[in-house]
Amino acid sequence: MINIQKSKRSMKSNFNYDDFVFGVQPTDHILLCNYKDGSWQSPSIMPYADIKMSPMSLCLHYGQTVFEGMKAFRQDNGQVIIFRPDKHFRRFNASLERMCMPAVEQDLFIEGIKELVRLEEHWLPEEQEINLYIRPFMIATEPRLGVKVSDEYLFCIVCTPMGLYYSEPVRLKVETEFVRAAEGGVGYAKCGGNYGAAFYPAQQAKIQGYDQVIWTDAKTHEYIEEAGTMNIAIVIDDRLITPKLSTSILDGVTRSSIIQIAKDLGMIVEERKVQLQELIDEFQSGKKIEIFGVGTAAVISPVKCINILGTEYYPYTANDATMFKLKKQLNDIRKGRSSDKYNWNWFI
Amino acid sequence: MINIQKSKRSMKSNFNYDDFVFGVQPTDHILLCNYKDGSWQSPSIMPYADIKMSPMSLCLHYGQTVFEGMKAFRQDNGQVIIFRPDKHFRRFNASLERMCMPAVEQDLFIEGIKELVRLEEHWLPEEQEINLYIRPFMIATEPRLGVKVSDEYLFCIVCTPMGLYYSEPVRLKVETEFVRAAEGGVGYAKCGGNYGAAFYPAQQAKIQGYDQVIWTDAKTHEYIEEAGTMNIAIVIDDRLITPKLSTSILDGVTRSSIIQIAKDLGMIVEERKVQLQELIDEFQSGKKIEIFGVGTAAVISPVKCINILGTEYYPYTANDATMFKLKKQLNDIRKGRSSDKYNWNWFI
Ligand SMILES: Cc1ncc(COP(=O)(O)O)c(C=O)c1O
Ligand SMILES: Cc1ncc(COP(=O)(O)O)c(C=O)c1O
Repeated sequence: MINIQKSKRSMKSNFNYDDFVFGVQPTDHILLCNYKDGSWQSPSIMPYADIKMSPMSLCLHYGQTVFEGMKAFRQDNGQVIIFRPDKHFRRFNASLERMCMPAVEQDLFIEGIKELVRLEEHWLPEEQEINLYIRPFMIATEPRLGVKVSDEYLFCIVCTPMGLYYSEPVRLKVETEFVRAAEGGVGYAKCGGNYGAAFYPAQQAKIQGYDQVIWTDAKTHEYIEEAGTMNIAIVIDDRLITPKLSTSILDGVTRSSIIQIAKDLGMIVEERKVQLQELIDEFQSGKKIEIFGVGTAAVISPVKCINILGTEYYPYTANDATMFKLKKQLNDIRKGRSSDKYNWNWFI
Repeated sequence: MINIQKSKRSMKSNFNYDDFVFGVQPTDHILLCNYKDGSWQSPSIMPYADIKMSPMSLCLHYGQTVFEGMKAFRQDNGQVIIFRPDKHFRRFNASLERMCMPAVEQDLFIEGIKELVRLEEHWLPEEQEINLYIRPFMIATEPRLGVKVSDEYLFCIVCTPMGLYYSEPVRLKVETEFVRAAEGGVGYAKCGGNYGAAFYPAQQAKIQGYDQVIWTDAKTHEYIEEAGTMNIAIVIDDRLITPKLSTSILDGVTRSSIIQIAKDLGMIVEERKVQLQELIDEFQSGKKIEIFGVGTAAVISPVKCINILGTEYYPYTANDATMFKLKKQLNDIRKGRSSDKYNWNWFI
């Protein structure tokens, strides 16, 4: 049972849906649940507010933090769904295990999200293309300066409205010097440290005129892994090609959904290593190639220019590109316009 | 100018010097300094207390955190010194740069530490082997759920008493599956993410009967890099051998000090790649080999057993081992018993 204390008034009245920056405005409530003495205490949903923390909290020093990110949508008929919370739940626990943090129960995670979204669904307007971004996260809270696994944790869920993410086609640079994640490391976990570590390489790419980097494997820098904080996929003819999962690649929920949709559309899906040289060869052969990022935020982010080892190539991004069909189909499922064969939509 | 607000009474009266766990008891004050609108605000030293934080603070989500760790000692004549704060300062800023965080001025960092240690030096007893562990750290505080470099930061310094760290000889396992850091990554930075990521491999090693792991390079797993959260060094005859610095190895202050001391003692110092096969060959030749971790906490941590690719070898750890001479000399310098040729001691 979640103890609920409702906020007296909604911050929504001061929120401008027509002009806002993503991630700044929390909704009215936060779910909080403490872990101590080896077990989870009872969760509560409270009015959104700052939290008090010891300056010695382990999460501030040793990066013992894990998060998730998913979305809730209002369907055309008015009903609100959460997209694949079960898959996010499993990934959350996989991340937690790698970071030596205690698992959460499916009940706490999914019922917590549902309960919170029920309270916040009024933030989802009927007329506008706004969805709710849901951020469950866990931080190590034991106050202790020694390098050690924390004995205390705080699990939270917050939400924030998200507009239609217009994904302008991007210019990406294949990164062969900096590394996001190595096999045997924590790249497959959604732990905080992976993201802070990726800022500098992305900043350097910006200086060179690119929007983001495409990560390559730490061992040889010959294989592509991810695109910034998205998975990466390629379409050539009727094939969808995407790097095979490994300990250095995040198991994206959008990636998995797009793979399923591509199969349903009759495409051949190849999950395997993707070599830079293969891409170069395909481009040089004059083939029509689509390259795109896949992730919760933008769903699909078309790549219009890719710098591979110093040479720029130009993937196909016209309106009839296959990636947009995949995106539309995913969107149709979520909005209730297309049949939800795989039970991806969880009604609140 | 640091604004100082003294605590009304010291927590020291309730502190048991004869029986305490490292890192739990803060001293009475904390230094706090906020960064916003592109510049550092004025620092203050306040009574130690919890801090208020937005649940959306970027540090809780994307691991934009950096820390340092150094020590203050009471010398035999009663004077208090801080050991090489200038070198810790440079490393702090190097870490910050890699994490896209704003540099701090030497004045804020070193004067902040000195001022704080002046207030806390009464925590250093005359009679006991207690020193003060000093923890400067910086966290990203902008409340924002988007993956971005923070525009706001909090720089803090806290202290905690530290007892004589009895470093029992340890059993270490050479890790060839899990990875702490890759070249091109953030291993050389003291960012939080590196530490949380290392918990799981260390836990697995414990299950297998070892105290910690020895990290190898992410590319080939053929070269040793560090020992847990310490640098690693080897003594064979009159040679001190230690892995050469790279982007995957932390530039340890103790490592650098021990190298200097070894040179002063007439040893040959080799900073270079150290291959596992080389160690195996040396052990198999029957040579006397010393292996030890080097770091601020224990200074030197003797290795009594090392598992290399499944075989255990037994380095030399008797009382006459060279590593103890190096440790004693470092300690003598800090305590004022030996001349401080390199100005490592900063009086408060
Ligand atoms: C590193 C990384 N890769 C890929 C993804 C895409 O995963 P998902 O589709 O589950 O959002 C994310 C998260 O959005 C990510 O942070
Ligand atoms: C990963 C790592 N290596 C090495 C060291 C040793 O560095 P120092 O001698 O500056 O304490 C530390 C910190 O103590 C560390 O965290």
